[in-house]
Amino acid sequence: MNLRELANMKEETLMADKNKSPFSEDSVIVAKFGGSSLSNGEHFRRVKEIVSRDPRIRFVIPSAPGKRFDDDEKVTDMLYECYSASSAGESIDELFSTVTSRYDSIIEDLGIDLDLTEEYTHIRWAIMHHAGRDYAASRGEYLNGIILASFLGFDFIDPAPYIKFADDGVFEPEITDSLLYAELKKHEYAVIPGFYGSMPNGTIKTFSRGGSDITGSIVARAVMASVYENWTDVDGFLMADPRIIDNPRTISTITYKELRELSYMGAGVLHEESIFPVRTAGIPIVIKNTNHPDAKGTLIVSDINAPEAATVITGIAGKKGFSVISIEKAMMNTETGFGRRVLEAIEKEDVNFEHLPSGIDTMSVILSTDEIAEKRDRILNRICSTVEPDTITIEDGLALIAVVGRGMVKAKGTASRVFKATAEANINIKMIDQGSSELNIIIGVDESDFITAMNAIYREFEK
Amino acid sequence: MNLRELANMKEETLMADKNKSPFSEDSVIVAKFGGSSLSNGEHFRRVKEIVSRDPRIRFVIPSAPGKRFDDDEKVTDMLYECYSASSAGESIDELFSTVTSRYDSIIEDLGIDLDLTEEYTHIRWAIMHHAGRDYAASRGEYLNGIILASFLGFDFIDPAPYIKFADDGVFEPEITDSLLYAELKKHEYAVIPGFYGSMPNGTIKTFSRGGSDITGSIVARAVMASVYENWTDVDGFLMADPRIIDNPRTISTITYKELRELSYMGAGVLHEESIFPVRTAGIPIVIKNTNHPDAKGTLIVSDINAPEAATVITGIAGKKGFSVISIEKAMMNTETGFGRRVLEAIEKEDVNFEHLPSGIDTMSVILSTDEIAEKRDRILNRICSTVEPDTITIEDGLALIAVVGRGMVKAKGTASRVFKATAEANINIKMIDQGSSELNIIIGVDESDFITAMNAIYREFEK
Repeated sequence: MNLRELANMKEETLMADKNKSPFSEDSVIVAKFGGSSLSNGEHFRRVKEIVSRDPRIRFVIPSAPGKRFDDDEKVTDMLYECYSASSAGESIDELFSTVTSRYDSIIEDLGIDLDLTEEYTHIRWAIMHHAGRDYAASRGEYLNGIILASFLGFDFIDPAPYIKFADDGVFEPEITDSLLYAELKKHEYAVIPGFYGSMPNGTIKTFSRGGSDITGSIVARAVMASVYENWTDVDGFLMADPRIIDNPRTISTITYKELRELSYMGAGVLHEESIFPVRTAGIPIVIKNTNHPDAKGTLIVSDINAPEAATVITGIAGKKGFSVISIEKAMMNTETGFGRRVLEAIEKEDVNFEHLPSGIDTMSVILSTDEIAEKRDRILNRICSTVEPDTITIEDGLALIAVVGRGMVKAKGTASRVFKATAEANINIKMIDQGSSELNIIIGVDESDFITAMNAIYREFEK
Repeated sequence: MNLRELANMKEETLMADKNKSPFSEDSVIVAKFGGSSLSNGEHFRRVKEIVSRDPRIRFVIPSAPGKRFDDDEKVTDMLYECYSASSAGESIDELFSTVTSRYDSIIEDLGIDLDLTEEYTHIRWAIMHHAGRDYAASRGEYLNGIILASFLGFDFIDPAPYIKFADDGVFEPEITDSLLYAELKKHEYAVIPGFYGSMPNGTIKTFSRGGSDITGSIVARAVMASVYENWTDVDGFLMADPRIIDNPRTISTITYKELRELSYMGAGVLHEESIFPVRTAGIPIVIKNTNHPDAKGTLIVSDINAPEAATVITGIAGKKGFSVISIEKAMMNTETGFGRRVLEAIEKEDVNFEHLPSGIDTMSVILSTDEIAEKRDRILNRICSTVEPDTITIEDGLALIAVVGRGMVKAKGTASRVFKATAEANINIKMIDQGSSELNIIIGVDESDFITAMNAIYREFEK
């Protein structure tokens, strides 16, 4: 994970230059707006209102236009289709005109004096002539950026020359940081499209889907922003998945670590990798709702800057679809390398383990059922031949629930409340895993108990 | 662990012969008497009473004489001293006469017609002439066996020719089983001294200390005993260590698996390895008190033969002296082989890990503080260089508590009760580990909370 390296860059080298920079004098805010906040003219006007009322918002990162209604298509999806059609030797005329009409309708709605005809021609030609899949996809952000810059009266900066990837496709944090810094300091206000950068050979390379969040984070780091605002269509992170818990509370403050431990949520509010560039730079992220700009949102901060937890539990995340391999072997605890060899057997099938609870003569390996899929028998065979267990069984249908909160260290009795809640709901606990971080308790329950358990735990802490 | 292999021997091969054996016709009991049950003449009379009233007790395994009073010396310890003195070229006359006088006083007290002078001379001479350390130690059981056989009117069988070890010192279960069976079937009633057998070159080899328990188990297996009675000076296994819990209840029935999971108890009631020979043969062990022969004792059985648990918790065992290495690394969950490499680093220093609780970006390794001792820095360095964590810390002073019970599967809410009890006692839980066996919950607490936590949990389940 190379974005981590940016986070770990020596602060001194960065700071030495930046302290003399235009950004050090006043508080700069970087604001990223998601596709659902930029899907039509109405959205653009809201964004302009948000950006206009805070002059500290100097750098704006747009996504490509998202869905305007449930059955609508995202522009990025249409662009991928254009690429596929072009690769298959088919005409992209019709598909591509659907894309351009999306932009034209925004321009018309906004009433700005902007003609993208020439851009469209170039892009259409490039998609037809080996500019590549990433190039096609990236044009969603590129075009949206041009429109937004024009509408806001900001400079437009194409990130391709500044956000760099290495030949192996891995993001280059250090080069990017200095190139981006050098360019951004020339602009007072600018729009930088999200999602993409370029390869050493000049071709376009995108981050993984949702990667505009990463661009925002990289820009925030480059200008040492006071805050990275991530504008989306929800009021922030919720304490739990609203499909499971009815009307969960919004989290007001969460630490980067808590957020990671809640990653089972996979809610898609924020790209998982986007936290790293800003994390150790001490730049907080705030998740805000474009549709309710006055809502407080969720503030994501480092441990050091985190206020004392207002609640014991920050969030609860859970996921079905885990399998348990249970291994029994008398005296396994005296066999040096027993656990290591079990993990090695799994690793040889290129599978990651989730948890490894162990007793004296028993060891359980928790794995993603999907991930083991057809490797199931091979994994069991490998374990058998390497550690010769007395018995080995595999069982599917486990759900994992992570109860996460930095408030747990101080609030003794958290485990007691978790297990009281599940006991009262008549739920059988199949696995428990809590390490010394005291940041989380992870429990395993039968999938059929998943919803009940999540609700029981949530209600225990939020009654 | 080679005793396991005996346990795993194909039942068919054993049964084919043994079904035609004298032992298959009636119920045979093997009784082992510990050193504290055979330290003086009074003890010998009690043993005779116990053996006499049950004609099914056909094979008796004695330990060497134990302490008669608190400051007394065990005969085995004196014999080790004889060996040390002899090796150092010192005279063993005085030491050895203390040993022989112990036996002579028993013989005198019992009033039996037995003169061991010739044995003493041979043994003394052998200790002086390279018979070895194991030989010296084993003579405690050997001489006690001769006296007991004479007193009970049983045959005396020296186990040396039948209990065999390989050249590498590892016990040979299969050869032993058939040699022992062939010899024992010739005897209706016999005493077989515990603790030792012989090497391929004819020298004496002992099991580890307390190994008479193993001899008893091997004999019980060889004759397919209906039960293996292990007579000692306690009423059976206690639910918890009486040095920690005031007057704990005696366990009436425990399974082999539960016993293993409680091995932190290390109470020394029964040699850890002695359960394997009888375990899969389905031969139960019963722990009985020579001083209260009518007390029910503790029955140790296999899962299949276990009665439904009368209590949720079978026992609680705990131990101080653990250290926690806490590792944090962003995105560690996506690094295939992360956990394996951590365990490998520890294994390279020849250390076994106890538990490995993990979150998303956090992993804790629980290790014995004693075992890591001077390897501490090397282990941390190895982990650092192999997985490059963001942070790594080590903390001592952890106590582990295992709450064990086959009754936990049915009794939902056990975890809730454990954590309610500790929460009410104001104890901070630093680690939790429960696998899918649902046989135990292991918790980590600060050493300063150990006694309080043990008592709180015990009282919760035994009020």
